[in-house]
Amino acid sequence: MRKGISIGKLSKQASLRIAGLMSGTSADGVDVAIIDFSNTLKVLAFDTYPYPPSVSKAISKLFSNEKTQVSDICHLNFVIGEVFADAVLKLCRKSRISINSIDLISSHGQTIYHNPKGSRFGRILLRSTLQIGEPCVIARRTGKTVVADFRPADIAAGGQGAPLVPYADYLLFSHKKKNRIVQNIGGIANLTWLKASAGIKDVLAFDTGPGNMIIDHIAQLITKDRYRYDVDGRIAAKGKVDTSLLEKLMQHKFLKRRPPKSTGREEFGAAFSNRLYNTAAKAGLKPADIIATVTAFTARSIIAAYRCFLPLLPDEVILCGGGAKNKTLVKMLKEQIKPAKVLLTDDFGINADAKEAISFAILAGETIRGIPNNIPSATGAKTPVVLGKIIPGKI
Amino acid sequence: MRKGISIGKLSKQASLRIAGLMSGTSADGVDVAIIDFSNTLKVLAFDTYPYPPSVSKAISKLFSNEKTQVSDICHLNFVIGEVFADAVLKLCRKSRISINSIDLISSHGQTIYHNPKGSRFGRILLRSTLQIGEPCVIARRTGKTVVADFRPADIAAGGQGAPLVPYADYLLFSHKKKNRIVQNIGGIANLTWLKASAGIKDVLAFDTGPGNMIIDHIAQLITKDRYRYDVDGRIAAKGKVDTSLLEKLMQHKFLKRRPPKSTGREEFGAAFSNRLYNTAAKAGLKPADIIATVTAFTARSIIAAYRCFLPLLPDEVILCGGGAKNKTLVKMLKEQIKPAKVLLTDDFGINADAKEAISFAILAGETIRGIPNNIPSATGAKTPVVLGKIIPGKI
Repeated sequence: MRKGISIGKLSKQASLRIAGLMSGTSADGVDVAIIDFSNTLKVLAFDTYPYPPSVSKAISKLFSNEKTQVSDICHLNFVIGEVFADAVLKLCRKSRISINSIDLISSHGQTIYHNPKGSRFGRILLRSTLQIGEPCVIARRTGKTVVADFRPADIAAGGQGAPLVPYADYLLFSHKKKNRIVQNIGGIANLTWLKASAGIKDVLAFDTGPGNMIIDHIAQLITKDRYRYDVDGRIAAKGKVDTSLLEKLMQHKFLKRRPPKSTGREEFGAAFSNRLYNTAAKAGLKPADIIATVTAFTARSIIAAYRCFLPLLPDEVILCGGGAKNKTLVKMLKEQIKPAKVLLTDDFGINADAKEAISFAILAGETIRGIPNNIPSATGAKTPVVLGKIIPGKI
Repeated sequence: MRKGISIGKLSKQASLRIAGLMSGTSADGVDVAIIDFSNTLKVLAFDTYPYPPSVSKAISKLFSNEKTQVSDICHLNFVIGEVFADAVLKLCRKSRISINSIDLISSHGQTIYHNPKGSRFGRILLRSTLQIGEPCVIARRTGKTVVADFRPADIAAGGQGAPLVPYADYLLFSHKKKNRIVQNIGGIANLTWLKASAGIKDVLAFDTGPGNMIIDHIAQLITKDRYRYDVDGRIAAKGKVDTSLLEKLMQHKFLKRRPPKSTGREEFGAAFSNRLYNTAAKAGLKPADIIATVTAFTARSIIAAYRCFLPLLPDEVILCGGGAKNKTLVKMLKEQIKPAKVLLTDDFGINADAKEAISFAILAGETIRGIPNNIPSATGAKTPVVLGKIIPGKI
């Protein structure tokens, strides 16, 4: 029998050094985190590398679902593979970590389409998702085994292919005695519920509603794009919450829907925010009051989700995402969730900006060990599955 | 340390039962072969399953590189994954092979774009290729580990991503004492040179020129599409080869180019064949004479490649591809390569129609064992690499 070098060896290592690559829907660049992970996590390095402008532009064009030639997608897949490989090599050089010391690379890929509702194929409804950034290029340039493309396996198992980060939250933050929530506040806000001594089946994860999306949009409006967001929550701090507008916002039907649930720009994007701003301005609210009110809306809708949809209230809430830097928002959350403690992932040695890249690095480690790493209660998958595709590194 | 079930186990099995899925550029369906492979090959089952008409149509649209929405490609990737999974399950049922007895599935995928010449990305020229047919869907529906997407790794290693079948030819047909050629005659004709006791570095593989492409096109023209090809070479058998036209055709510059080289529709497709037909008809050649002459062109160009570009003449030529069924063509080849023996892959227990699906099944077995399975001298890759992506099956 001919013999090669098997990737089986990696699956037996107690500790893995993993570089995680993540690029989000903003399509502005790629995050890279390098971690050592066994039973504990050590984050060794993190940085973000912006995409070349031509790449950002090409991706944005795909986002709009404009018609494109398949030749362009074919090319862009390899281009982004090169960009990802470069990012890993750059971070290694910068942080003086030898690429040889890395065991595994994880690449989420750049999502160019995600269709969790599904489209018809004959009599069946097929969900689908598409990430690009050719992992074979990453494997070749770095010489390392790569795990990539995590979402399709969950979709094939009947899930929505998202959210996948809760599995990493479960490994990183679940506690024997404390009920915890990991609360991410990105454009949309989402939580991972980790009751004390949680098993994987106890984990809940869903979108709670808007995160920074409305605040950002209105901050851009009232500062005429001088600010892209309400830095440190300073505008909100100067304003006064309009209770009647807040109560009206809290009637939004998304907040009443039972989890698992997810939302996005369709519900809380530009159209919603413009309407809201115009109504509020007509009613005589000052710009700062509007920002204060929508900030309160984000805080209230988060806490409402805890009260409505979780079996218990948390002992600790661990914040991450851009919203964790909005001091006014955090203050509101603290007041409303008392006596629970509000912490940051940073308090656990996890840079909030790096958290997603770290999470996918952790997912890749599980994949290489053959451990199922989706959370069916979060994604809707019928069963646990091992996510991702494994690309063998250099022999 | 958390433990899962590793795919490492498969890499240690001396014998693997593998289902190979292959769909070619005709986009009319998917070939499935089931083999047992250790040091010897046993083909257990083979069949072809046509694509649903909507799928064929969608792929043809992509082939023409018309503009499409990325949402359509995203959906089609999952659709074809379902079609592939179905095909494996159907062949298992039909041939009474339990799906449980299968160790591994190999999926070439449906190529929707292949750009071996490359496109610019900044200062570098990037080759690329794109196959669809989501392998996670195949893994999920069958419960089996899948190896898929063989071409990108070779491209990442600096190759053209093709041809990949010569590696399987090398394993299946190389002989201690005989110099052999595996001659495939599809639309284009290509060979794999296997000198006696060949090592992998001795293998040569390249396109020799036209296969059936010109014959088919002109057969369709003169029968007004009643025949899609010259069945058994019957038309050619009735005609007379026009030596002066043949000599002119033999001046084609592709035949003089040094290997590795590849050609396609751009050089020998409809445009070329139409021009050739018109010239010949004007010169007074009868339809059967034209067919006879282009059949002789295919034969002569194949033999010319042996004489010009191989270090030795073969002891045996092993034919496969549709052209192996063209009796007139085979007769011409036999006359010109005497005293070498002309055989069919069928003489080795390998159904010519199944050969590609079998070849990719063999490639997947090598991948799971971590054995590099491209042939750099054939693809132009800088080094040997392990091709493909591994998708873990059900736990």
